[in-house]
Amino acid sequence: MKEERYLAIDIGGTKIAIGRFLRDGTLEEKVIFPTNAERGYKKILEEIIKNLSRLKTKDTVALGIGCGGPLDSEKGIILSPPNLPGWDSVPLKKDLESFLKIPTFLDNDANCACLGEYYFGAGKGIKNLVYVTVSTGIGGGIIINGKILRGQRDSAGEVGHQTIVPDGPLCNCGNRGCLEALASGTAIAKRAQEAILRGEDTILKEWSKTEKISAKMVRSAYLQGDKVSEKIWKDALEYLGIGIGNIITIISPERVILGGGIVKAGEEVIETVKKVVKDRVRLVPIEKVEIVPSELGEDVGLYGAFALILSEMGV
Amino acid sequence: MKEERYLAIDIGGTKIAIGRFLRDGTLEEKVIFPTNAERGYKKILEEIIKNLSRLKTKDTVALGIGCGGPLDSEKGIILSPPNLPGWDSVPLKKDLESFLKIPTFLDNDANCACLGEYYFGAGKGIKNLVYVTVSTGIGGGIIINGKILRGQRDSAGEVGHQTIVPDGPLCNCGNRGCLEALASGTAIAKRAQEAILRGEDTILKEWSKTEKISAKMVRSAYLQGDKVSEKIWKDALEYLGIGIGNIITIISPERVILGGGIVKAGEEVIETVKKVVKDRVRLVPIEKVEIVPSELGEDVGLYGAFALILSEMGV
Repeated sequence: MKEERYLAIDIGGTKIAIGRFLRDGTLEEKVIFPTNAERGYKKILEEIIKNLSRLKTKDTVALGIGCGGPLDSEKGIILSPPNLPGWDSVPLKKDLESFLKIPTFLDNDANCACLGEYYFGAGKGIKNLVYVTVSTGIGGGIIINGKILRGQRDSAGEVGHQTIVPDGPLCNCGNRGCLEALASGTAIAKRAQEAILRGEDTILKEWSKTEKISAKMVRSAYLQGDKVSEKIWKDALEYLGIGIGNIITIISPERVILGGGIVKAGEEVIETVKKVVKDRVRLVPIEKVEIVPSELGEDVGLYGAFALILSEMGV
Repeated sequence: MKEERYLAIDIGGTKIAIGRFLRDGTLEEKVIFPTNAERGYKKILEEIIKNLSRLKTKDTVALGIGCGGPLDSEKGIILSPPNLPGWDSVPLKKDLESFLKIPTFLDNDANCACLGEYYFGAGKGIKNLVYVTVSTGIGGGIIINGKILRGQRDSAGEVGHQTIVPDGPLCNCGNRGCLEALASGTAIAKRAQEAILRGEDTILKEWSKTEKISAKMVRSAYLQGDKVSEKIWKDALEYLGIGIGNIITIISPERVILGGGIVKAGEEVIETVKKVVKDRVRLVPIEKVEIVPSELGEDVGLYGAFALILSEMGV
């Protein structure tokens, strides 16, 4: 019997990955190319189609697409994501479906990553699951009863934009004191730059002369004993714990999976989040809520786009 | 054909209501008696059974129980609610089921109220729904895809215990800066008492000589032009808006129903919450999320316990 194959595509502002999977999750082949977002939708679509053509086999039965939001998963339309300039109401799903002539599914990257962990990673078999990704921004996906919670126009799971400090720093979204404005990589770097400007005593001042301050540098400075960096880093983790605690208080899931660049900082992050959650969440039996790091590494987007097919087709 | 009937019981710390319903939601008969919680479980159970016996007809097919949590809905056990002293792991469901010999269902009061609104009130036909009740405390219930979200040990929907101000006032739950510690009736009264103690210029100081300050009195003083009361009242509504905004950001429901004593304060409450949500929630299309007052009045608990039967039996 011929085995069925599935195509998956993960579209980001920096790079695009395309993969071909077997039903059991084996990633048979993968190609990655730079997005070069400035060339616009049409040129990027051409390169996507060229690569899909190469990877498609006769037994390929479906395509899953993960892409930065906002988007309309039902209509298959991308709605002007900040990192894909010119993708204004582009019918990505239809454009690829009419070319490949196989069932095609679209969802935002955070929902796909959540589904990827649910099918192949740290969330296997966990029907009530929250995935939180902390990198430059903070996003998330929620699975209830084994299904992604979509909400109004695919907007559920925007856990990074809960208000944690009502009069806190301005967030990119326009609100003040969002979790993302307090605990994302961008927020950590921004707090460090502010400290330098205020003339605080930190090694980051020297470092900033040759390199743009990043969250990673703040952590390095903290590990080298820099007190200013320590406070910035620890405050951010405290806020992250509060935000995850709020999600747990409202949804009471079985498991929270933490993904994104911050996971590379290791056990310390998970342990601090667990400690804050234990301190603050009093009405959920937190011994029943696991907080774990994501298991899928850099291919989480591809696995997620594949998992989207499985979820939507009920395979 | 004989029409089926359903019994519902709403157990609170102050009073207990029992009702008999027709399938269409007609409340045929109702009895209310004081809980007198201090007499303990056994005596209260006796009075409940006496009244259930009186209301039960031959065509009564099921019983629904709404009770203050924490409780275990699956095992049917009440787990030491603060307002029912001595109800420590009491098998309420079994005790009533073995007496009435009809299928019996138990859930906490907030989930029941949410189901009541879903079947008979402001949430009819809305499959993704959040119910928030603001009285002495702040509680809630969440319906996803037409089903109550239970979470770990029935702890989902504790929306009053999200952290809104990390270093805010101490909450009864032990955390700091919970929504409940900032926006409940108890919190409003407490802020007023603190203002009086600080010697602030408020009419409440006079009023407190003859009566214990309540949230209702704070609102009356504000409506009479008392500036201190105005600030307390408006701050509380602002926090309530932030908390409801966070729920919307995370879950992106179709509708939020606001219930409890605060709804009696009228349109102002809903309008303020809507305004704050519009200011702060940027990534959910809020024009698609309705915020409305509850429709079931004082009988919401009874309707809710009846709706629990319908939900669990899939009638």
